[in-house]
Amino acid sequence: MKKLKNLIMLPVFALSSTAVLADEGMWQPNQLPTIAKELTNAGLKLNPNDLTDLTGFPMGAIVSLGGCTASFVSDKGLVASNHHCVYGSVQYNSTAENNLLKNGFLAKSFNEELPATPGSRIYVTEEITEVTKSVKSGITDNMPGSERYKAIDTNSKKLVAECENDDRYRCSVVNFHGGLEYYLFKQLTIRDVRLVHAPASSVGKYGGDIDNWMWPRHTGDYGFYRAYVGKDGQPADFHKDNVPYEPKHHLKVNKSSVDDGDYIMVLGYPGRTNRYRTAYEVENTFSWTYPQAKAYREEIIDLIHTNSEVGSEARIKYESTLASLANYAKNYGSMIHSYNKGTFLQRKQELESNLGKWLKSSSKRNAQYGESLSGLNKLIKQDDKQQARDLILGYMRYSKMLSTGNKLHRLAIEKQKPNLERERGYQERDLARFEQGMKSVDRRYDEKIDKEILVAMLKHYVALPKVDRLKSYDKFFGLKNVTAKNFNEKKLRTKLSKIYKKTKLNSQKQRLALMNNSVADFKDSNDPFVKLAVSSFKERKAIEDASKELAGNIQAYRPKYMEALIAYFNDKNLPVYADANSTLRITYGNVKGYSPQDGLTATPYTTLEGIVAKDTGIAPFDAPKKQLELIKNKFYGDYAKPEIGSVPVNYLGTLDITGGNSGSPTLNDKAEFVGLVFDGVYESIIGDWDYDPKLNRSIHVDVRYMLWVMEHIDGATNLIEEMDIVE
Amino acid sequence: MKKLKNLIMLPVFALSSTAVLADEGMWQPNQLPTIAKELTNAGLKLNPNDLTDLTGFPMGAIVSLGGCTASFVSDKGLVASNHHCVYGSVQYNSTAENNLLKNGFLAKSFNEELPATPGSRIYVTEEITEVTKSVKSGITDNMPGSERYKAIDTNSKKLVAECENDDRYRCSVVNFHGGLEYYLFKQLTIRDVRLVHAPASSVGKYGGDIDNWMWPRHTGDYGFYRAYVGKDGQPADFHKDNVPYEPKHHLKVNKSSVDDGDYIMVLGYPGRTNRYRTAYEVENTFSWTYPQAKAYREEIIDLIHTNSEVGSEARIKYESTLASLANYAKNYGSMIHSYNKGTFLQRKQELESNLGKWLKSSSKRNAQYGESLSGLNKLIKQDDKQQARDLILGYMRYSKMLSTGNKLHRLAIEKQKPNLERERGYQERDLARFEQGMKSVDRRYDEKIDKEILVAMLKHYVALPKVDRLKSYDKFFGLKNVTAKNFNEKKLRTKLSKIYKKTKLNSQKQRLALMNNSVADFKDSNDPFVKLAVSSFKERKAIEDASKELAGNIQAYRPKYMEALIAYFNDKNLPVYADANSTLRITYGNVKGYSPQDGLTATPYTTLEGIVAKDTGIAPFDAPKKQLELIKNKFYGDYAKPEIGSVPVNYLGTLDITGGNSGSPTLNDKAEFVGLVFDGVYESIIGDWDYDPKLNRSIHVDVRYMLWVMEHIDGATNLIEEMDIVE
Repeated sequence: MKKLKNLIMLPVFALSSTAVLADEGMWQPNQLPTIAKELTNAGLKLNPNDLTDLTGFPMGAIVSLGGCTASFVSDKGLVASNHHCVYGSVQYNSTAENNLLKNGFLAKSFNEELPATPGSRIYVTEEITEVTKSVKSGITDNMPGSERYKAIDTNSKKLVAECENDDRYRCSVVNFHGGLEYYLFKQLTIRDVRLVHAPASSVGKYGGDIDNWMWPRHTGDYGFYRAYVGKDGQPADFHKDNVPYEPKHHLKVNKSSVDDGDYIMVLGYPGRTNRYRTAYEVENTFSWTYPQAKAYREEIIDLIHTNSEVGSEARIKYESTLASLANYAKNYGSMIHSYNKGTFLQRKQELESNLGKWLKSSSKRNAQYGESLSGLNKLIKQDDKQQARDLILGYMRYSKMLSTGNKLHRLAIEKQKPNLERERGYQERDLARFEQGMKSVDRRYDEKIDKEILVAMLKHYVALPKVDRLKSYDKFFGLKNVTAKNFNEKKLRTKLSKIYKKTKLNSQKQRLALMNNSVADFKDSNDPFVKLAVSSFKERKAIEDASKELAGNIQAYRPKYMEALIAYFNDKNLPVYADANSTLRITYGNVKGYSPQDGLTATPYTTLEGIVAKDTGIAPFDAPKKQLELIKNKFYGDYAKPEIGSVPVNYLGTLDITGGNSGSPTLNDKAEFVGLVFDGVYESIIGDWDYDPKLNRSIHVDVRYMLWVMEHIDGATNLIEEMDIVE
Repeated sequence: MKKLKNLIMLPVFALSSTAVLADEGMWQPNQLPTIAKELTNAGLKLNPNDLTDLTGFPMGAIVSLGGCTASFVSDKGLVASNHHCVYGSVQYNSTAENNLLKNGFLAKSFNEELPATPGSRIYVTEEITEVTKSVKSGITDNMPGSERYKAIDTNSKKLVAECENDDRYRCSVVNFHGGLEYYLFKQLTIRDVRLVHAPASSVGKYGGDIDNWMWPRHTGDYGFYRAYVGKDGQPADFHKDNVPYEPKHHLKVNKSSVDDGDYIMVLGYPGRTNRYRTAYEVENTFSWTYPQAKAYREEIIDLIHTNSEVGSEARIKYESTLASLANYAKNYGSMIHSYNKGTFLQRKQELESNLGKWLKSSSKRNAQYGESLSGLNKLIKQDDKQQARDLILGYMRYSKMLSTGNKLHRLAIEKQKPNLERERGYQERDLARFEQGMKSVDRRYDEKIDKEILVAMLKHYVALPKVDRLKSYDKFFGLKNVTAKNFNEKKLRTKLSKIYKKTKLNSQKQRLALMNNSVADFKDSNDPFVKLAVSSFKERKAIEDASKELAGNIQAYRPKYMEALIAYFNDKNLPVYADANSTLRITYGNVKGYSPQDGLTATPYTTLEGIVAKDTGIAPFDAPKKQLELIKNKFYGDYAKPEIGSVPVNYLGTLDITGGNSGSPTLNDKAEFVGLVFDGVYESIIGDWDYDPKLNRSIHVDVRYMLWVMEHIDGATNLIEEMDIVE
């Protein structure tokens, strides 16, 4: 699930005013008593109240990997997640001679297990405490935005620092409903994480980027870690004497999996949704931001293609950039299409109109909330005035030279401050990663392409209104008084040629040296991109500060708007779930197909035979030969599903998930493990904004496929024996 | 259905040895008594024997347009066919001021009807007579191939000439089972054909080339002609005093259409299939010919793209060439994919092995047929020795200058002979079309692209073994002693530049003048492409003669092989249908969806709502605004199908059809009109070679959609009133 790492939702159900709330909704554990009846009606066999206990069963078995979800599946700390969540660790342990990515990896005993990629963590959420009062302490309605921003920031940091006094824990303060509520999350942090098993990439990544977000799907997206702790049972750094962590709870694995229509649920850490944005935000995003961003992405993709031959060194350097550009161009394309074809904006406008009427029907409510939406929109519109500029400056960062200069100079500035006061990305804990980034420029930079990106983006830049232009940029690039009309590309290219000839930022040695330079050193530098960073800092910082000021001001309105919205829904006896924010949630629904297009039905299961049908022998459709042979011989072992006459590979569910849910166990009505969620279908990409019960489908690896591959392809019988397999 | 015009089948059913033969098979009317039980079991309510009567009901209502099928749907000679079958006539009557292609056309009364494109004919098959004996008269087993070829040709021409003594008729001798049987077809030829109605192209061609061969489909592929005759009721040339033809039989139109699973049948004129080719022919075609031809097509497509900007004059000139190149590249791609994924070759080999065993089990059979397959394959292999050369020479004809020179010169040569002895394409009846072709070069030729095609194909040509090279070509292009190793592209380009500079074949005036030149005039010409035509003629003619000689030799073997095959099947009580050959056939089956891919089901109907979902406002997805409005308002009139809650647009059937079936009426169990067949799905493109009951699906316009558009969009109420509408 590629969408899970970057993107940020209004409940549709609320508009349909139905009482049954299955499928849509990412519920906080403490909300479950509110929807207990619905859960039971939907088929849950457990007492819904049991799901509220973070340290009980089954919540205690669910963990976060930071960006991905995972779960304990044995009493010896065996952790199941997606292949794409453990991928980095497989890559880290791979060598030319022993290509684990290609061949997969299996530790047949504990001592064959390999260290996960440095920095890997397993987070077990043990406490969730509401801290709204503390976070909002000292905040008044009329204080300036910048002060509000700072106050919330400082109060939060204080709470985190207190909580992290016990260094076994990582803590975070997270806002809900746009700042209406704040919760403190306390997570036990296991630091010794080891790689246990991952299938070959030709199983775990089968279909690759081509099948990403697509159905039909045939991906064996699973892998296993193990959590290790010190002999005292407490989190510890990696040590050979460490012992497997023994979780209080782990999931049983039900090898029968689930049938079409069965109850399923996913417990996990969904990243970001935007379901409560205003109609204005929706319209602006879908009719301006996404189309514009898609166009810039496609322009840069074209330009990389034109300036590097397939298979050339330059092209290889840009493959991952291309993949990421294309991934979101596809994502935005799907969302724009869904938006244009659907009634999302219309429903959003209807909701706001109904909310308005409801507020006006009570003078008390109207006095309290009447201005919240208009006030919020006013601020957002203020921000959007600079959106054309901000988007161009954003895509300009695809020039490695420009962004590297800015980052190095910013590091010097931040280093002047106490560690905790520094900006994110420049604190002591970030420096190893920062250095890694500076090293990696060599593998991701080509002068010609970098220059072409800058030319292309500057061509858009000169079309900006004068007020949006940066004087420092105009001066540096010789663009003073230059507009779209009198833009002279040849002249710019001559200028850039000189700049690129002179800069030393293309040298790794130089970049690493600059990490230790002072602000004064930077001021004395003759390197053109350093000079640009220095000369433009004041202007860029002003943009950043204005943005924080605005964020602070919005903090005065969005919570109020959300409060009004929640009151409105609650008045209709409808509970409200908060937008995803990387905290523990539960979503439930059913195994179910859908109609992606008039005249087509996506059936809820794919089968082994579909792998053979897709296989071309060329990545990403290059299943292991042994697997193809077994399928051709209809060797299903114990894992065939009689209704479909084969082993199910992936299945569709109605669950409301997003990025961050990757690796979440899919549980049946008794909270037994029946697979892993790993993606959503193409038509549900807009789901981060708008849940459509007809089109929103989650994609799961079927536990039967996992076990079939583990037993018959990879011989991972030790793991099958370690888990509690039930039927 | 684009596939219908160029392509040439073994019965799969025969391998499955099932007794029920629904779905697969294109049966000759005279075969129907043999499969009467199956027809009745499948659901036919008529007496199957009635279908054998060419002048009775319903066969008497089925006509050919030459390349397409059509049917009488009123007692006033109203003829229904596909939009793509009447397209040429709509285009012919279109002007810049009155764009009928765009707006559609409706004659509200007889006198508003427009003449169809010149040369349009409606053929009513009145007699089919077996003439095997006459055609094979004078033929011996041991005569040389060239003589056998000539004898068959002469005997056939004689039969046709006798039959056409009555000039109301067109006659043809057609071979069945590769020359095992010959039949004389006598068709009443209606020469005054008028355009009555065609919807806008945005209905009739909705989805265009993108949706071609695809499901889900939403194409209103229908249009109407009317047959006119002289006041005496006999065929006559166009005249304002002519009167509508009154057919003895016409089809009733059942506005209820058909349900999922219902019996349907198609009567029509399927063009070409290859179901009885040998395993060797199959392997060679799918592993060599199609991949190679696909590569050449893609190479030429790339080269046109590279050498002409989108929207440029050059690009516009090549749009139809590009469409045709891409169409077959897609067609071959689908067939290669199906071949590689399926068991076609394996089944073919099994059949040959079983046939061989069956033959060997009887010494009499073995003596008679034992050598037929090996003898046939030996000849085919002999032909295939030159296939690399023949394919390159074939694609070299995409150079308009080279092919135009050859054609003009050939015309002069053929004109020396009596009309009937001339080659096809050079007879008196062909000259108007020939001249049209010479004129159209202007609209389809760009010097730079033409030259690039020649460079690309000559690059392949020089890699041919010496024995396959043409001395005249080598000399003309300066390629003597040039091989792939020492090929000098620059030198060739210099040479070609001079040639293109000098040729006058790019002048329409010059081309038309050359149509009247004698062979001697050609010999005296200084035009390089004319000189090439003259100097290479002897070599090209030798290739042509060798090909005829081989065809004659194959005539001694293929009928024998087919006889053996038919005897083998008949021994198993399986009737055998002949490969399609543009003669009247019947195929029957059911309305039925299929699974195009593991995890997906194609449902048997598409609906009006699917049009709105596909619509982008840009051709080919630009349905008329009025239509979109009606759909959004759920205005279904009388035509909604309750099971799907909307008006069905297209539906899927299991019928065994191919190109030439386009425009065929789809009939229900009482032979009432319930739609028009117009295409097959992507997975059934290989159906011309191999019918797979799981994947072979025909696509039909639902009669309800036709009537809904006619009544509510185009106001064609006069036609609806003219037809016999039943429920």
